[in-house]
Amino acid sequence: MTVTLNEIKAAAERIKPYIHRTPVLTNESLNQKVGSQVFMKCENLQKVGAFKFRGASNAVWSLTDEEAERGVVTHSSGNHAQALALAARMHGIPAYIVMPNNAPQVKKDAVAGYGGRITFCEPTLEARETTMDRIRLDTGATVVHPYNNEQVIAGQGTAALELLEDVPDLDVIIAPVGGGGLLSGTSIAAAGIKKGIRVIAAEPELADDAFRSMQAGNIILSVNPKTIADGLLTSLGTLTFPVIQERVEQIVTVSEAGIIDSMKFIWERAKIIIEPSAATVIAVLWEKKIDLAGLKVGVILSGGNVDLNKLPWQ
Amino acid sequence: MTVTLNEIKAAAERIKPYIHRTPVLTNESLNQKVGSQVFMKCENLQKVGAFKFRGASNAVWSLTDEEAERGVVTHSSGNHAQALALAARMHGIPAYIVMPNNAPQVKKDAVAGYGGRITFCEPTLEARETTMDRIRLDTGATVVHPYNNEQVIAGQGTAALELLEDVPDLDVIIAPVGGGGLLSGTSIAAAGIKKGIRVIAAEPELADDAFRSMQAGNIILSVNPKTIADGLLTSLGTLTFPVIQERVEQIVTVSEAGIIDSMKFIWERAKIIIEPSAATVIAVLWEKKIDLAGLKVGVILSGGNVDLNKLPWQ
Repeated sequence: MTVTLNEIKAAAERIKPYIHRTPVLTNESLNQKVGSQVFMKCENLQKVGAFKFRGASNAVWSLTDEEAERGVVTHSSGNHAQALALAARMHGIPAYIVMPNNAPQVKKDAVAGYGGRITFCEPTLEARETTMDRIRLDTGATVVHPYNNEQVIAGQGTAALELLEDVPDLDVIIAPVGGGGLLSGTSIAAAGIKKGIRVIAAEPELADDAFRSMQAGNIILSVNPKTIADGLLTSLGTLTFPVIQERVEQIVTVSEAGIIDSMKFIWERAKIIIEPSAATVIAVLWEKKIDLAGLKVGVILSGGNVDLNKLPWQ
Repeated sequence: MTVTLNEIKAAAERIKPYIHRTPVLTNESLNQKVGSQVFMKCENLQKVGAFKFRGASNAVWSLTDEEAERGVVTHSSGNHAQALALAARMHGIPAYIVMPNNAPQVKKDAVAGYGGRITFCEPTLEARETTMDRIRLDTGATVVHPYNNEQVIAGQGTAALELLEDVPDLDVIIAPVGGGGLLSGTSIAAAGIKKGIRVIAAEPELADDAFRSMQAGNIILSVNPKTIADGLLTSLGTLTFPVIQERVEQIVTVSEAGIIDSMKFIWERAKIIIEPSAATVIAVLWEKKIDLAGLKVGVILSGGNVDLNKLPWQ
């Protein structure tokens, strides 16, 4: 299967009973500040606090009965791990989560809280993949990659589908880019629903591997990036990159200060909690590196998982 | 006029073009924690970050053309001042706001930012009322009291109206009580729409004048209360108290720790910013002083205006 609008529509039907239909919020102070009409698709208000629950749910509910019985496995220390654990629990099947032993306690607790069966390993990509492979061979569980997976991409695309149902006359959609699951799903949905709609990606300057990949025409790996936007550290995937190349107009990089200022503004004015990765889409408007004046701009606020005891403006 | 469901419905039509239709959110972690099915009406996501914008808008848009020309006046240092200033600006009429000269700078800035014409006075009730009276006589502006005003009560009732449109089968609604504008409007709307629905109020133990007023059968004034819920410091009004006596089942008082714990839980799990006054309704469920197990409970999250640099768990 190649992901098309039809797969995204099928995903939307499949996961509808399990996900939140998240609200689309507007804020006049934000509009005045940035000079566009902004429509915020609030995936920070999604279950587990991130859009990741859409893709994980679609992957889990796409399994055959036989596959489902053996469960799912992934390696992740982030929102995908929690999302997959909860989606699996809602389906009543096991989720095996490989996490590096240095992952923050709060993330270990969250995954365990959603019923994930955690296996710890050394904090290297090699150890994570070896450990995951071993579990896969032992259990027969299906691997659900955080973004380089067609069911996941289709699931993430359902956020843009809903956004365009609620606000059909958007001129532009902005989504953040890490591994590219959300961005590729968004761009397939947007192009399929509305010819000519512009899709723009937001990426931290300090983790600009997607920007450089677009320039180079091939995937450039992300090496130890140091941005506050900790959901956007990964490299593009072989499934997501070609979609992004074909359908995304441009990747706009944003500064750390722009991310933090945008994040605080949204907390203060819109009264919702967004994580730094989500703030990147606001930062694109905030820093005005491209001209979107007067346009109707949909932004996907990807998540809201932050440590309230360690805020970046403290 | 006595406020009835009809006035609330008329208010809803009148203010519809100006307010946000706020979302009703649910959160599975919260449901599990408290043992009820909770539906959160998010007035923290209302314009100016509080339900107060509903009442202020209804008051402003209920004026005759002649009255409107002369503007509105109030004394307030809280959310009502901002709400009235913005509502007046949207109508293109002046709003005179009397504020105590010791009000926090952030509140002065907010009112000025919404175009309110501020007059400062000594921080006593007498000075505030004298100053307001002088402005009223000078300008002919209409006084809009924060809660002891029928248009305001009708406006505040529209939040419950929308909540019951979205979730018609609620068993209970919980609203916070300060001056009683939101609570009286909520109870009129709820009783009018659904016979037998229970309306319960949340009040801080450290500002329990409404609780004591209900026990005594007459209004007991609030004297220098010291709760973190700074939106609930005022006494009941002559218009709100009789409605509350007639229609509210009981007032449940909550501890400061309950308020802070509930507030942090909502920030962490529901990813929305609520102020301590709004957290009181969650604290009623959290502290389980009354048995609402298994019921469908609507709660009105009254506002989200907090100083992000001074959080109560820091």
